Amino acid sequence: TQVFKIAAIPGDGIGKEVLPEGLKVLAAASERFGLELEITQFDWASCDYYQQTGDMMPPDWKAQLAGMDAIYFGAVGWPATVPDHVSLWGSLLKFRREFDQYINLRPVRLFEGVPCPLAGRKPGDIDFFVVRENTEGEYTNLGGIMFPGTEREMVIQESVFTRHGTDRVLRYAFELAKARKQQHLTVATKSNGIAISMPWWDGRADAMHAEYPEVTVDKQHIDILTARFVLQPNRFDVVVASNLFGDILSDLGPACTGTIGLAPSGNLNPDRKFPSLFEPVHGSAPDIAGQGIANPIAMIWSGAMMLAFLAAGAKVPACYGQAHDAILSAIEEVLRSGPRTRDLGGEAGTAEVGDAIAALV
Amino acid sequence: TQVFKIAAIPGDGIGKEVLPEGLKVLAAASERFGLELEITQFDWASCDYYQQTGDMMPPDWKAQLAGMDAIYFGAVGWPATVPDHVSLWGSLLKFRREFDQYINLRPVRLFEGVPCPLAGRKPGDIDFFVVRENTEGEYTNLGGIMFPGTEREMVIQESVFTRHGTDRVLRYAFELAKARKQQHLTVATKSNGIAISMPWWDGRADAMHAEYPEVTVDKQHIDILTARFVLQPNRFDVVVASNLFGDILSDLGPACTGTIGLAPSGNLNPDRKFPSLFEPVHGSAPDIAGQGIANPIAMIWSGAMMLAFLAAGAKVPACYGQAHDAILSAIEEVLRSGPRTRDLGGEAGTAEVGDAIAALV
Ligand SMILES: CC(C)[C@H](C(=O)O)[C@@H](O)C(=O)O
Ligand SMILES: CC(C)[C@H](C(=O)O)[C@@H](O)C(=O)O
Repeated sequence: TQVFKIAAIPGDGIGKEVLPEGLKVLAAASERFGLELEITQFDWASCDYYQQTGDMMPPDWKAQLAGMDAIYFGAVGWPATVPDHVSLWGSLLKFRREFDQYINLRPVRLFEGVPCPLAGRKPGDIDFFVVRENTEGEYTNLGGIMFPGTEREMVIQESVFTRHGTDRVLRYAFELAKARKQQHLTVATKSNGIAISMPWWDGRADAMHAEYPEVTVDKQHIDILTARFVLQPNRFDVVVASNLFGDILSDLGPACTGTIGLAPSGNLNPDRKFPSLFEPVHGSAPDIAGQGIANPIAMIWSGAMMLAFLAAGAKVPACYGQAHDAILSAIEEVLRSGPRTRDLGGEAGTAEVGDAIAALV
Repeated sequence: TQVFKIAAIPGDGIGKEVLPEGLKVLAAASERFGLELEITQFDWASCDYYQQTGDMMPPDWKAQLAGMDAIYFGAVGWPATVPDHVSLWGSLLKFRREFDQYINLRPVRLFEGVPCPLAGRKPGDIDFFVVRENTEGEYTNLGGIMFPGTEREMVIQESVFTRHGTDRVLRYAFELAKARKQQHLTVATKSNGIAISMPWWDGRADAMHAEYPEVTVDKQHIDILTARFVLQPNRFDVVVASNLFGDILSDLGPACTGTIGLAPSGNLNPDRKFPSLFEPVHGSAPDIAGQGIANPIAMIWSGAMMLAFLAAGAKVPACYGQAHDAILSAIEEVLRSGPRTRDLGGEAGTAEVGDAIAALV
């Protein structure tokens, strides 16, 4: 039988608190469905490790992870000791880029039992995907500072968009939209202000649309698009966006459904040449770290996404897909009936919620 | 007595429908308070003009406007005939840059009578300012396309941040925060992903903070910041942001208070070397243009902001400030008691709302 190798990396802050709950639920699912997961935990890719060694990861990190089927990742970042751009560029952003995880897939869904910050929205009203480009675009360290430390100081920051990188994320999004009921794709842009890259991005979307006539497309500037997330969240089906715009929309979307604490994500290498990475959207949350009150559901849901991604590979037993569905049902049930962490108005701790979901699975 | 010269520019789409209402209210205020406004209307800076001439504005546009005290601007953009980046870079973005309107000031306020899309928020809960850098940053046409039209195609887009441009917008925001009750400033950033410009931007904010110890500051990454606009809008007082981030936040903020149709803005040259420009945030809205249903309140409120800006100049009679307050009260009254346009659940047309506000003034 096929054994899947999983790297488990807690990282920093609440990453260390939610990952164990995710593993607990994966263990329960493995037992019930007979999954063969071989899990190895790594304590690097963390600011603790940086403080000891001066690097976020050991020199052979890539070799250590390259044979893995997936990376199950908590969160990284501890700005009190390591600046965010150092910790992130030294770990998460390196994974995304060097393992060519070019799709960042982020579901946005309103669940029963989760108080919605938007007035009058019911479960079912909000159910869409943000498909984010995950390797290039606005996230670069290209550019520099001229006349540093003087009155004339100026900074150039470069964004890089390639046809290769743009077309593959657009294609993924069109395919996803085509497979859904509404067959609708929203393309985030800002071609009225950002004058070189964004008009070009629009042109690539138009070109790709010609291959998917069944998909309806609307392009929306990022400013009004964020407004519509609040005013008409029911109108979205699949939203495709550049790295930065996808980052924004995939925090805003979950906020519109009640809390960032639920939102999972898959950093996918759909070609399966490299391990894909599954992580909660919420980050390390230093403000609540160490108290055992973080909501583990985003981590747990990310684990379910990991099983679904594995299930979609060649010749994988059906139990992986079933395990995904069982975890999702357990999450739904706990959201409906509790226990709930504080962000959802409850008083339960992180482990209590993890236990409840594991028990249901 | 001092006569203020105002250029009135309708532009495109609903700009042509809301500007007359703004002028109507200014006329009423002039009559009641004895303002001396000399208003000249210009029909260029529109896509119609572009279609006739191949340019958005005549070659001597700057000379025609340079002697004005302010520009009262509807909206520009008609993508069906002129691509947005052409129409905007040929008009609005030119004004902002060539008239050095380096502050874009955008109030966000929840009014009585306006249904709030956020659950459980009351008038008074949301009342803050977005201070947006308005001349540089992410909005550039620097960069280019390599290997165009081939598989290897790649695009570089450059952002430019100067110390000059960054420090003056930070200073304006710190001064504004210092003058308010809460004395709180939120600095939008994305220093964990955008690795050159944003860590530098954070450093400039830290340096400026040293001069304003009475102001409390928190830096927030743009992704989580958009989430907090939805989840905790009551926590904001003054938010300072780069050109792009300010653009996003100043559409999202008004959406959180019910509609983009109310949001005004001032594109300010605080040095008063060049005319400042006052315009609604909403844009030309081709989808509802020509029907006489657009909400004119953002335009009217922008006119009031214009009077307040004039009032703050040297040796200006107090009636300008009084006129601002009277227009604001009239807007509040109409929002409370109607008439209302469709975006606010009413059935009134654009002119009916303009008439009602003018009558109250
Ligand atoms: C029309 C567009 C170029 C403009 C901007 O992005 O600045 C508008 O959205 C605004 O906010 O004034
Ligand atoms: C931590 C940060 C670099 C990261 C990003 O911006 O991509 C995070 O916000 C995310 O969305 O995964």
